[in-house]
Amino acid sequence: MNYITSGNNPLVKEVKLLKSRKHREGRGLFFIEGTRFVEEAVKERAQIQKLLISEELYESGAVQGFLSDGDSIGYEVYILPQKLFKEISDTENPQGILAVIKPDYFQTDRLMSGECSFLVLLDSIQDPGNMGTIIRTADAAGVQGIIASKGCVDIYNPKVLRATMGSVFHIPVCVSDDLAQTALTLKARGFKIYASHPGGSVDYFDIPSWTNSAVVIGNEANGISDEVAHCADLLVKIPMAGRAESLNASVAGALLMYEALRSKIK
Amino acid sequence: MNYITSGNNPLVKEVKLLKSRKHREGRGLFFIEGTRFVEEAVKERAQIQKLLISEELYESGAVQGFLSDGDSIGYEVYILPQKLFKEISDTENPQGILAVIKPDYFQTDRLMSGECSFLVLLDSIQDPGNMGTIIRTADAAGVQGIIASKGCVDIYNPKVLRATMGSVFHIPVCVSDDLAQTALTLKARGFKIYASHPGGSVDYFDIPSWTNSAVVIGNEANGISDEVAHCADLLVKIPMAGRAESLNASVAGALLMYEALRSKIK
Repeated sequence: MNYITSGNNPLVKEVKLLKSRKHREGRGLFFIEGTRFVEEAVKERAQIQKLLISEELYESGAVQGFLSDGDSIGYEVYILPQKLFKEISDTENPQGILAVIKPDYFQTDRLMSGECSFLVLLDSIQDPGNMGTIIRTADAAGVQGIIASKGCVDIYNPKVLRATMGSVFHIPVCVSDDLAQTALTLKARGFKIYASHPGGSVDYFDIPSWTNSAVVIGNEANGISDEVAHCADLLVKIPMAGRAESLNASVAGALLMYEALRSKIK
Repeated sequence: MNYITSGNNPLVKEVKLLKSRKHREGRGLFFIEGTRFVEEAVKERAQIQKLLISEELYESGAVQGFLSDGDSIGYEVYILPQKLFKEISDTENPQGILAVIKPDYFQTDRLMSGECSFLVLLDSIQDPGNMGTIIRTADAAGVQGIIASKGCVDIYNPKVLRATMGSVFHIPVCVSDDLAQTALTLKARGFKIYASHPGGSVDYFDIPSWTNSAVVIGNEANGISDEVAHCADLLVKIPMAGRAESLNASVAGALLMYEALRSKIK
């Protein structure tokens, strides 16, 4: 057990830096917050390196389990004053527990290897809430992996992680430097690429087969890039009965992912 | 045209106060921001009372249309320095245009009168992004009205309004003091009440009929209250194929609303 008392402590500075993508990528680390999220990380054998706990939470006795997990998993535990914890936290009302974790980087190749039969491709999803919700929904719908274009918001952004509600530890998410190329590779391996598109020719509930398929969801303002749309086997439309011009990206994604699940169940 | 130069101007103070629900309700006013949103308000004949424009946007000449609309609609236009605009804006990068509007309060009774055959009931939706996304999706899916419990986040919250992407002007949203009673009244008028519930007995895609129906979506953490669940004709389940424990409320809502639309189209 270690005690931190000063904001000048190097670990305090490091965690603060991990709020920026540049530093997360430079250091190969990210952090999550909250009792349930940390429990999920322990359960899923995430590579937790350090656990930071506020004095208040520590003294409440509610974190005994995490202390013994630390012994078996091998992470270090740090206790720090409530005020200092609030400074490093990314939330307005921190629960007082935060884990610094080394990400499991998934290789695009592994997802395309043939073990997976239903994937989601994300083309420049920008909003952290949407990104996190898509990961959560993909987990619920039984999607086997997500490939995000490098233009997407970082999945280790604290707001993305919060919105995943723990699903970031359940489903592989990897980044593609060239999403159109990834789509072509998937096609060559027998995947059908279905891209959600306002100019689509087929309603999403009329897709003939979901076996070995990948759904593409596009950017919130601009949709799917032309390069990626050109690789699609089908441009898929979500019917609009009212006067809304479009759907939220995570809603559009959910409709397509659940359509695939429905076709499996029915 | 009026020019505001000081932060002590009463209108500046008033708009700032409208960020809180208490003041919105007390004054019977709310505000929206951004060129497209204000255009939508003009087009939909919202009761715009005042239009605030930053000097920068005014001098760009891009708001000529709004100035002549002001003459015909009868709202007053105020020009204010960029810096002052930023102070009153609810966004980080304000576009420089903001409209103060008197809401159209819809009566629950009107929605239950028999003109509508598909409604959405919201039970304590708390997250502004979810609330706005549900309103947007309801508009897209052809839902005819939304009845929110009084425990829901205020629909005139700036974050809710932004997430509606203008749909707040397309679809009636009203507030019920007693959502269970509202559900019972709807039942007495021939509506079927379908409540999204993890313990549901029927998958959402196996609902036999969507004619004259109302879908209930519950709170993000606690779901639907027992009182409201007891009024439902069916508790409806969304299957979970992976390891996520639940879905985001706006995603669950979208799946149900689009299932109803699908049944109409197919």
